[in-house]
Amino acid sequence: MAVRVVGFDGDDTLWHSETRFQVTQGNYRDLLSRHVPDADIAARLATTEMRNLSIYGYGVKSFTLSMLETAIELTEARIPAADLEVILGWGKRMLMEPTELLDQVEQTLMAIAPRYDLLLITKGDLFDQESKLARSGLAELFLGVEIVSEKDADTYRSILKRRGIAPEEFVMVGNSLRSDVVPVVTLGGQAVHIPYEVTWHHEHVPDEDLPHQGWRRIAAIGDLPAVLEDLHFTG
Amino acid sequence: MAVRVVGFDGDDTLWHSETRFQVTQGNYRDLLSRHVPDADIAARLATTEMRNLSIYGYGVKSFTLSMLETAIELTEARIPAADLEVILGWGKRMLMEPTELLDQVEQTLMAIAPRYDLLLITKGDLFDQESKLARSGLAELFLGVEIVSEKDADTYRSILKRRGIAPEEFVMVGNSLRSDVVPVVTLGGQAVHIPYEVTWHHEHVPDEDLPHQGWRRIAAIGDLPAVLEDLHFTG
Repeated sequence: MAVRVVGFDGDDTLWHSETRFQVTQGNYRDLLSRHVPDADIAARLATTEMRNLSIYGYGVKSFTLSMLETAIELTEARIPAADLEVILGWGKRMLMEPTELLDQVEQTLMAIAPRYDLLLITKGDLFDQESKLARSGLAELFLGVEIVSEKDADTYRSILKRRGIAPEEFVMVGNSLRSDVVPVVTLGGQAVHIPYEVTWHHEHVPDEDLPHQGWRRIAAIGDLPAVLEDLHFTG
Repeated sequence: MAVRVVGFDGDDTLWHSETRFQVTQGNYRDLLSRHVPDADIAARLATTEMRNLSIYGYGVKSFTLSMLETAIELTEARIPAADLEVILGWGKRMLMEPTELLDQVEQTLMAIAPRYDLLLITKGDLFDQESKLARSGLAELFLGVEIVSEKDADTYRSILKRRGIAPEEFVMVGNSLRSDVVPVVTLGGQAVHIPYEVTWHHEHVPDEDLPHQGWRRIAAIGDLPAVLEDLHFTG
């Protein structure tokens, strides 16, 4: 069956996201290390984030709340409120930053949009993701936008079913093996993996858990049109 | 045209929400008044919430961040981190509380589900709303769920279009004139208003801005089946 629909992840596939989290985490470590020089701040923050995932979900607001919680815990509540105000400000700044597209994103989407239906399928905070998409200038290239709280096989199955898309005619493009590649290949769809310069630890997948076929890896989104062409006839 | 699809708001229509915000706000005023006895804490918090709406959107996480910001501002950063930790805890508690349905919700939905397609159309934080719906036990009664960042005429237009629903065959049921009644009636649909015991100030609509027809008000959701029956033939 020919490829008809191409799904795109947003964060770190179309626009930069994780590097911004890492910049803020660097600032956070600097700020906290003045109060707790011996603590493993990054590890403690990661632990708080994972513990809060089932309460807060993904996104910058959740991240900000976890930074505040970790700061209070690590300092045994000795941290001055003025420092917590600085952390609140970082969260706001992340939410207000312009959407910075990765290289070649705009040209690539414009090149393939006439040929395929494009969907944006992205995880995270509804409000923040809609706002990023609006500021990206890419919104009108997408036939549909799905902002979801988790990207597992059930999520993709329900999106494809609701939109009347057979898995065989669907290709998902994204930087996360865990969220963009594995669940789609599991369903019988195909995937294209474009690694981002850094990956959030939560998104790592051990090599032995990767599907043997149904997906391929490219170095940059500019290589996508040729790969789709190829999948179109052989997939 | 006969009514075919009934949309329901979630917060304060199917389950309690605003009363929980008000309980937390009461605790918040008590806590802050120990530091700033003369401040109009409720007004300052409302101002912060409105100022942050375009950055954070709706929901408990946004509310928590605004409580923290207001507490630091009002006390000129003199508030101890331990008090801010208490506020963080209130936010988490709100997110984890069981979903408490309003009276007669379950019976009413079960009574009308065989006859109409039911949609949940609710505003707020994606993760929190999905979690509340899952805990409500009502999920399987809905043909579809739409969690949106704003409920204006454009939002409803796009939902109806995507789902192939004519405005004339759609009735929206909810507690907010601003979000559930006015935009739907504007589009040519109908609406049923069920006032909740308290209304968030942001959702108030002056009487002169209300449409003259296309909607009616009932006292409780138990009255809905009879009203739908009536709309079905006269609407």
